[in-house]
Amino acid sequence: MMVKDPQQLFVNMALDAWNIQIDRTNKLFNSLSDDQLAQEVAPGRNSGIYLLGHLTAVHDALFPLLGLGEKLYPQLEEVFIKHPDKSGLEKPATNELRRCWNDVNEKLQKRFNNFSIEEWFQRHTAISEADFEKEPHRNRLNVLLNRTSHLANHLGQLIFLKK
Amino acid sequence: MMVKDPQQLFVNMALDAWNIQIDRTNKLFNSLSDDQLAQEVAPGRNSGIYLLGHLTAVHDALFPLLGLGEKLYPQLEEVFIKHPDKSGLEKPATNELRRCWNDVNEKLQKRFNNFSIEEWFQRHTAISEADFEKEPHRNRLNVLLNRTSHLANHLGQLIFLKK
Repeated sequence: MMVKDPQQLFVNMALDAWNIQIDRTNKLFNSLSDDQLAQEVAPGRNSGIYLLGHLTAVHDALFPLLGLGEKLYPQLEEVFIKHPDKSGLEKPATNELRRCWNDVNEKLQKRFNNFSIEEWFQRHTAISEADFEKEPHRNRLNVLLNRTSHLANHLGQLIFLKK
Repeated sequence: MMVKDPQQLFVNMALDAWNIQIDRTNKLFNSLSDDQLAQEVAPGRNSGIYLLGHLTAVHDALFPLLGLGEKLYPQLEEVFIKHPDKSGLEKPATNELRRCWNDVNEKLQKRFNNFSIEEWFQRHTAISEADFEKEPHRNRLNVLLNRTSHLANHLGQLIFLKK
C-alpha cells in the first residue's frame, strides 16, 4: 500500500506524540492541588512545583531554539534549569507557574500548527549551517521528538503525586 | 535549504529517539543490583523488577503488532501486563528477566534496521486495511513513537532506584 504524502504524515505523527504527552500532563496538573504539587514526587526527589517550572522553562526555550523568537519567561531558567530544586532560590507562586505552563504550550502549539513541512526539516538555531549540511537530522522536528521524551520522563514521575 | 531524502531522515530520527531511551534504560538496569531492582521506585509504587518485566512484555508484543512474528516470551504478559505488581503471581528470576529484556530489544533492533522506509509506513496488525485507508498515521513508525514515550515514562520512574 502506498503512503499518501509521507512527510506531512510524519510531521502529524510527531505532533500527535507531543500532544499526547502535553494533554496527559495538563490533565494531571489540573487534577493536583497546589499542596499536592508542593510535595516531592518521591522521597528526596524533585517537587511537583519544581518539575512544573522545569518543564515550563525547557519548553519556553523552544522559542529561540526553533527560531520562533525570544523566551516568554526567561527568568525561569535560573531557578528551574540552572539550579536544582533545593537551591534556596525563591520560586514564583504556583498559580503563576501554572499560568506560564499553559501560556508557553498554547503559544508553541499555535506556532507548530503554522510550520510548513519544509520548516520542520530546517535546522534548529543551535547548529551551524555547515554542520547541518553533514547532520541533516538536527532539524526542528528532531528537537520536538527529543522534548517529547523529556516530557514523558518527567510525566512518569509526576504521576506519583496522585494518591 | 532543501532536505536530502526526508523520509529516510525521519525514520532515522524516530529510531534515534527510540535508541536513546533504550540505551539510557540499559545503562540504568546494568548499574542496578538485583536488590535495588527489587525495591519500589517510590513508596507503594511498582518495583523495578515489575517495570523490567512490564517493559520487556510490552516490547515483546511489538513482534506480532509490527508483523514480525510471534512473541519470544508470551508468558510475561500474564504477570507483567494483565496483572499489577502485587498480584501474588510468581515472577521469573531477575537474571532471567534481564536476559529477556536484552534479547527482545536486540532482536527488535535487528528487525528495525532491516525495515525499508516503505515498510515503516505500512499499517500495524491491530488496524484493518479499510481503517488504515482512512487513518494512514496508524503505521509501524507511529507505534515506535508511542512506545518510545511509554519507555520514557517508565525510565523517569526507574531512575529513582539509583541512590
